[in-house]
Amino acid sequence: MKYYTQFENKSLADQLIQKALEYKQHPLLDKNLGAGKRIGLLFLNPSLRTRVSTQIAASNLGMEPIVLNMDKESWALEMRDGVIMNQNKVEHIKDAAGVLGSYFDVLALRAFPTLTDKGEDSEDYILHQFIKHSGLPVVSLESAIRHPLQSLADMITINEHKKSEKPKVVLTWAPHIKAIPHAVGNSFAEWSVGCGHDVTITHPEGYELDERFTQGANIEYDQEKALADADFVYVKNWSAFNDYGKILCTDESWMLTEQKLINAPQAKVMHCLPVRRNVELSDEILDGERSLVQFQAKNRIFAAQSVLSAIIK
Amino acid sequence: MKYYTQFENKSLADQLIQKALEYKQHPLLDKNLGAGKRIGLLFLNPSLRTRVSTQIAASNLGMEPIVLNMDKESWALEMRDGVIMNQNKVEHIKDAAGVLGSYFDVLALRAFPTLTDKGEDSEDYILHQFIKHSGLPVVSLESAIRHPLQSLADMITINEHKKSEKPKVVLTWAPHIKAIPHAVGNSFAEWSVGCGHDVTITHPEGYELDERFTQGANIEYDQEKALADADFVYVKNWSAFNDYGKILCTDESWMLTEQKLINAPQAKVMHCLPVRRNVELSDEILDGERSLVQFQAKNRIFAAQSVLSAIIK
Amino acid sequence: MKYYTQFENKSLADQLIQKALEYKQHPLLDKNLGAGKRIGLLFLNPSLRTRVSTQIAASNLGMEPIVLNMDKESWALEMRDGVIMNQNKVEHIKDAAGVLGSYFDVLALRAFPTLTDKGEDSEDYILHQFIKHSGLPVVSLESAIRHPLQSLADMITINEHKKSEKPKVVLTWAPHIKAIPHAVGNSFAEWSVGCGHDVTITHPEGYELDERFTQGANIEYDQEKALADADFVYVKNWSAFNDYGKILCTDESWMLTEQKLINAPQAKVMHCLPVRRNVELSDEILDGERSLVQFQAKNRIFAAQSVLSAIIK
Repeated sequence: MKYYTQFENKSLADQLIQKALEYKQHPLLDKNLGAGKRIGLLFLNPSLRTRVSTQIAASNLGMEPIVLNMDKESWALEMRDGVIMNQNKVEHIKDAAGVLGSYFDVLALRAFPTLTDKGEDSEDYILHQFIKHSGLPVVSLESAIRHPLQSLADMITINEHKKSEKPKVVLTWAPHIKAIPHAVGNSFAEWSVGCGHDVTITHPEGYELDERFTQGANIEYDQEKALADADFVYVKNWSAFNDYGKILCTDESWMLTEQKLINAPQAKVMHCLPVRRNVELSDEILDGERSLVQFQAKNRIFAAQSVLSAIIK
Repeated sequence: MKYYTQFENKSLADQLIQKALEYKQHPLLDKNLGAGKRIGLLFLNPSLRTRVSTQIAASNLGMEPIVLNMDKESWALEMRDGVIMNQNKVEHIKDAAGVLGSYFDVLALRAFPTLTDKGEDSEDYILHQFIKHSGLPVVSLESAIRHPLQSLADMITINEHKKSEKPKVVLTWAPHIKAIPHAVGNSFAEWSVGCGHDVTITHPEGYELDERFTQGANIEYDQEKALADADFVYVKNWSAFNDYGKILCTDESWMLTEQKLINAPQAKVMHCLPVRRNVELSDEILDGERSLVQFQAKNRIFAAQSVLSAIIK
Repeated sequence: MKYYTQFENKSLADQLIQKALEYKQHPLLDKNLGAGKRIGLLFLNPSLRTRVSTQIAASNLGMEPIVLNMDKESWALEMRDGVIMNQNKVEHIKDAAGVLGSYFDVLALRAFPTLTDKGEDSEDYILHQFIKHSGLPVVSLESAIRHPLQSLADMITINEHKKSEKPKVVLTWAPHIKAIPHAVGNSFAEWSVGCGHDVTITHPEGYELDERFTQGANIEYDQEKALADADFVYVKNWSAFNDYGKILCTDESWMLTEQKLINAPQAKVMHCLPVRRNVELSDEILDGERSLVQFQAKNRIFAAQSVLSAIIK
């Protein structure tokens, strides 16, 4: 696993952040670096920010991006080895990834979890199958368990807005109407702890994230206590991890509102988008001064550009 | 509202037409004008001509076009303010338009009306939401009530084929099997009157278009009278505006045929395509010498190029 | 019909193969040949290899490729002349092809057969409608009855791996769970015989291909006999041609396995992909030394590039 699928170490993260900030100033700084190179942007699930920002990042580097919505433009892939393929899956991941590996210089893949097979999701099975069979660097555009380019964009955003060396960062669970993957929560915890922030995670009981990602963070079940004196509050829903993929809590009072931040007057509020307004986060916050969501989204371009430039250099 | 979402004035229209005719002669005349600029082509509804012609227009100017079929590649957008987003809409227009506004230099949007909410459609709600929240120039690729690039292409085509300064232009309603928006009819009337043509609109009773668009045109319910001595006949279906979105007439005799043009021997026939052959217009006309439909379609490229070049200059 | 829709003659095939091998060594050899030219890649059916490889081929030649998934991004086309279009088809092929013909320099089209209308499929109706009404060179990306770019890639692959001037090439039918078109089988037979190989076709009784494509090949119903001493074994399913579109045989023993090749120790195994593993072909073969499937897929780029370069020269 590489830095373009997960967090590696603080030193590398700092380099990626610095490079991203350079690109933000001068998007076309390395406009010929990727000349003659192609990146395949493969989507097994829908996308807006991720697709467009990565396409722009590649283009800023002079790489040719080719988008393939595999679920819609092609067909369903068989992921398991040794299967007799007499059902609805048209092509095996082995064969498809091998071909795409021979067509491109870099691949980028979005592959959400099933939320039904905890073991398979937890080992990031589909991402690993693509890495193994393509033989190429595969950038994660959100895998079953991580969303590293989002987290890098989040770190860039915190870096731009922090007022102290070790800001208090709170990841707070929010309500949602659907069972949502853990990738953003996992990655944000992993990167934020890794980058040296003072990290607190708050959620209802039963919503503990996979411990692999939360080492070094404080877990605080009382949202009010958790939020006190926060510098950054990251709002995100996820389904239960232990009772895998289940919705255990529908308590609307977990929604972040202005009133909840009474003891965190300086807190900036973050969300990866898309956000369910007035379910996860109130309009007043999203439309107010605290919100960094548009900064995060804009930084997706430079996060991707920083990572792609490191890969092709 | 700007000339890339509606008709502005005759002088500007004449400039856009002249520029388009220049580009038709020399498509790559300004091939570096858009260097380093990106246009997002956003489709909430299907497209063929509009998508491809706008993509080519941008490319002729050296802009990078990125197509996003938002309804298929992304997810459903919530358009109303203040909603508790606990239904099937995944992202609010505010947030999505804000992000896209930060990724591109220009946006272009196709957003058809619902045909169920007359008030919302009539104020071009979705287009205005995108304009408001993106902060960018937003070119209309057909909104709820207008299709300006189509109408500009139509004006270019009339300009190329007219034999007199003030040709007689007839917009005639045609049958269709589905309830169809008013955008093409509205825009054609608005531009054709605005460009100084002698405009007559004919349709069954009850099919009156929104008067905002038909000021200055003659309304004539007798199709035969309307067509006499026409220089150009524009064929188009639309659903009722007053009895909003309804199909009031299924009278097949409103289809334009060669026989209907007995008193308009010189008439050229226009349609924006896609056309229902032998429902709206007969094969004999579409495949004959009168038809300008392919000229109109080709001019879509240069209409878009003319408008984009004016925006980025 | 041209070489970009079917096999023409051995001399032209040899030229295309040689050019493709040059491009394989130097993909950017003619990188400015297509400057200012555009190719429309039109898909009425899903695609992975074909779409991406043709897009890359065009890009290697400096042409701008624009992909249009007409079935998903646009709407259903009416193909029959003279129809009253009052059903679900939104636009006539005449009009759509005319427009696309005026927007591009070259078109490429994927249009599968219905497998329900033998007469229409056999005359390659849709492909011919596009050719007729677009007025452009139309490259077949798999039509109802042929898949020429696949076959050219196959010939390149055989050329690279053959150990004798006239290798023994066996096309063997394989089981499948769905009714599959004849295009790959037809084209492979047509090109392989045309290129001077010693061709044997083996399949269950009733699966005889259209004789137009199999002239010059041996038909051998005993798979074991057919495979003996083969240099290349091409595995492919197709539905019945005489009893049109039907599945007549579900005998799993027609699947190619290592054991079946006991009398063909040197045989290389080919398949166009996507392949149903352990239905058409065993994992042991696909993952072993005999398999050329990834070579074939890679050669799709250079086959397309060779053909496109011949067209635009």
